[in-house]
Amino acid sequence: MSLSPISLELTITLPTWLNKDNWSPSYPTDIEKMRLVIDLAQKNVLHETGGPFAAGVFTNSGELIAIGTNSVTRLNLAPLHAEIVAILFAQQRLNSYSFRSSGLPPCELFTSCEPCAMCLGAVLWSGFSRVACGATKQDAEGIGFKEGPVPTEIDGYMRGQGIEIIRELLRPEAIHVLETYRKKRGPIYNA
Amino acid sequence: MSLSPISLELTITLPTWLNKDNWSPSYPTDIEKMRLVIDLAQKNVLHETGGPFAAGVFTNSGELIAIGTNSVTRLNLAPLHAEIVAILFAQQRLNSYSFRSSGLPPCELFTSCEPCAMCLGAVLWSGFSRVACGATKQDAEGIGFKEGPVPTEIDGYMRGQGIEIIRELLRPEAIHVLETYRKKRGPIYNA
Repeated sequence: MSLSPISLELTITLPTWLNKDNWSPSYPTDIEKMRLVIDLAQKNVLHETGGPFAAGVFTNSGELIAIGTNSVTRLNLAPLHAEIVAILFAQQRLNSYSFRSSGLPPCELFTSCEPCAMCLGAVLWSGFSRVACGATKQDAEGIGFKEGPVPTEIDGYMRGQGIEIIRELLRPEAIHVLETYRKKRGPIYNA
Repeated sequence: MSLSPISLELTITLPTWLNKDNWSPSYPTDIEKMRLVIDLAQKNVLHETGGPFAAGVFTNSGELIAIGTNSVTRLNLAPLHAEIVAILFAQQRLNSYSFRSSGLPPCELFTSCEPCAMCLGAVLWSGFSRVACGATKQDAEGIGFKEGPVPTEIDGYMRGQGIEIIRELLRPEAIHVLETYRKKRGPIYNA
């Protein structure tokens, strides 16, 4: 095995097709927030820049802080699920490892599909006040993705940490993205 | 809240005190691998560049692929636990989102402490053949860190995915790092 030298730096980019100019500075309703992330998930599929998933971090008043598209295959990095990417970019922008830091408004994660075991952990460590999901774990598993050992008592655990969970918001539209990916025979990178 | 513009790029660095010249190209035994990551965890505490945790990715023949130090407080990014950082740098170097890709040797994760819920997910998605841990979940919780909802059946689940788990390797030395952090009153970023 011939390897490049060990690097001390790594850069994560968002896809080049992203056009920030198309984003509204504010997404007042849950439906508008979810519609944005589902639209980005669909574009991620059509541009073949990753799995059929996207996520966004918003303040509780609807300001868009950051978005993330699944970047596993594009950047060859397994941890780069949409939620992880959105969290990294949001925390970089707010310059804080916790959305519960003083001076910050409550922050919410909108994700086009229920988070896997890894992303649930990242949600916990990031201090969200609210998480809203489109497609379900079963929908993702239905096209071949794994979600990992998500504990059955997760909703109660999240509520105990002060995190409200909303499920199946615009689920049909979110499922449509998964179906598009299946029809295009997109790679199932964690099968 | 006054925010910087949305960025489409994010750079993750390893700490500047790291000296690659001190690393051996090969760490043939489990003890040598664990000693390296515990030493890096201790340095991370002494240099105040993050939590008391470090991890390394090695091939099954002992070649060092990448290391990661906990970088949550240094880079203000909650997902940057040691394991996530090590996985990102290893996959960048191997140019693959899975250590089970054809042409790659089996890869092993050595971590100075048992992985939290998030990092366990990342281990699953990365295709390791083996994971070795120093301190236990209880040791980390003993100084105030949370590990999240790690399912009780996790060992069986990992074995089912072909991942061998070794626990409590050099545990006393790994605990010493946690104790050093506690005495220095290092921040408990996910309390």
